[in-house]
Amino acid sequence: MDAHQQLLADVFDRACPSRDALEHVTGRWGILAMVALTEGTFRFNALRRKVDGISEKMLSQTLQALERDGFVRREAQPVIPPKVEYSLTPLGAETAEKVFALVQFVEDRLPEVLDARKAYDAAKG
Amino acid sequence: MDAHQQLLADVFDRACPSRDALEHVTGRWGILAMVALTEGTFRFNALRRKVDGISEKMLSQTLQALERDGFVRREAQPVIPPKVEYSLTPLGAETAEKVFALVQFVEDRLPEVLDARKAYDAAKG
Repeated sequence: MDAHQQLLADVFDRACPSRDALEHVTGRWGILAMVALTEGTFRFNALRRKVDGISEKMLSQTLQALERDGFVRREAQPVIPPKVEYSLTPLGAETAEKVFALVQFVEDRLPEVLDARKAYDAAKG
Repeated sequence: MDAHQQLLADVFDRACPSRDALEHVTGRWGILAMVALTEGTFRFNALRRKVDGISEKMLSQTLQALERDGFVRREAQPVIPPKVEYSLTPLGAETAEKVFALVQFVEDRLPEVLDARKAYDAAKG
């Protein structure tokens, strides 16, 4: 991808790398990890407790993809036992703000979603 | 889920239905369908062309989940040949606005993401 193409990032194009960056922050677990990290710095296990239901392997993969994309910073302190902490980068913090706005909106409007489901299921009978 | 619990929707709780409503609008295809529909009303095949790479089956499943949640309206006109159109509901339009803000942000900042990936891969390399 050259500089010109970068200016024309388009998630609708299956070959555009913006599509997988977007998927990392909006994936089932990426979204929850991003929002959790808006609260501050977390050690791995604390983050795992916060994101109810995530496996160790999935959290590890999720954080690695977010770190590679520059959304999350992983800091390993040279102490015994090893202490590894995760936090948002400035880019990650800005991204997480948008993710959080969406999450809060869906949480707030959940009653409408549940009503819609009830009506849909009733109509399908 | 009773009225009290609805007020406390929490995507961090794996049992909260907000989690799957969120997944429908942020899933790999849900997010693209929502953003496409901000442009107006689409027939199925036009939407499929817009969302590059989606299969007929996945688009159909995606739209059905979004319709059930009350984000998308499906309108079948009683004509021959059948004409089925999809559009955002008012709730869907508000949701899509938040989704779109996130998508645009990630598209805009893609060069930073690509730089981060290069640096990450070089460090691991």
